[in-house]
Amino acid sequence: MKNEELFVTATLASWKQALLRLDQAFTACTDDDLEREVAPGKNRVRYLLGHLAAVHDRMLPLLDLGARSYAHLDIYIERADRSFDETATPAELRQAWSDVNARLSAGFATLQPEQWLEKHTSVSAEDFAKEPLRNRFSVLLSRTNHAWSHFGQIALLQKR
Amino acid sequence: MKNEELFVTATLASWKQALLRLDQAFTACTDDDLEREVAPGKNRVRYLLGHLAAVHDRMLPLLDLGARSYAHLDIYIERADRSFDETATPAELRQAWSDVNARLSAGFATLQPEQWLEKHTSVSAEDFAKEPLRNRFSVLLSRTNHAWSHFGQIALLQKR
Repeated sequence: MKNEELFVTATLASWKQALLRLDQAFTACTDDDLEREVAPGKNRVRYLLGHLAAVHDRMLPLLDLGARSYAHLDIYIERADRSFDETATPAELRQAWSDVNARLSAGFATLQPEQWLEKHTSVSAEDFAKEPLRNRFSVLLSRTNHAWSHFGQIALLQKR
Repeated sequence: MKNEELFVTATLASWKQALLRLDQAFTACTDDDLEREVAPGKNRVRYLLGHLAAVHDRMLPLLDLGARSYAHLDIYIERADRSFDETATPAELRQAWSDVNARLSAGFATLQPEQWLEKHTSVSAEDFAKEPLRNRFSVLLSRTNHAWSHFGQIALLQKR
């Protein structure tokens, strides 16, 4: 493997590990379990499922890997848990989560290692010339960290 | 910047961001606050402070960046919270956390981008030849994820 490929492969493994742990946690939850708060007065697992699905859905256009499909879930980013009427069912949230991650995985597979260093779509070419770290790779790292921070919270509900 | 340098610089920024957020959280905690559990019956912040200091201290020899100094804190890895007599004071835990991260930062500054792809010290040269992802870079990613997962828990105690 070339050096660029080693850096990207390791980072994708770290992303996939976050998704695997979250998948296991969500699968272990019944729909009733999704209503549990990760701590008293804090987000429910259901909200975090919708939140993570929406954040990952937004990665598709941000990484220039295609259009997103779940813009109606942005309410799980823009509004606090329990502050809005939820129209998405648990089954729909689970499906969105699974679907967006599969689409991201398919998109990632089309990228050569060097393409991870290309700009993401919310930075202009002019700004990117000055700030070369505003690239796809940094988005991947940032979203991986985001996923792990919420995984840590959801893991509090698991039996030791 | 060369491609290797871009990958490493972005990943170090992600690590530093985790440390910054944790530093802010620990600094915002009085010693009394350190006794709070992140959720009922779960780890106290004090335990997570010792745990993270010990895990990061272990990174020094693992990344071949020098000897560790806080082996006595391994009890925060090996034992569950509240299952052992704590001899380290909050001030000592805070100091260990700050010190190990400074030593890691100094060590990281000595590494060229390509050296992140060298093997870590707990894999043999023979196994590393077969599994080239068992390198320093993967350790950095893994410990960054670990830090974010605990940050997510500690953040539950912060006011919204």
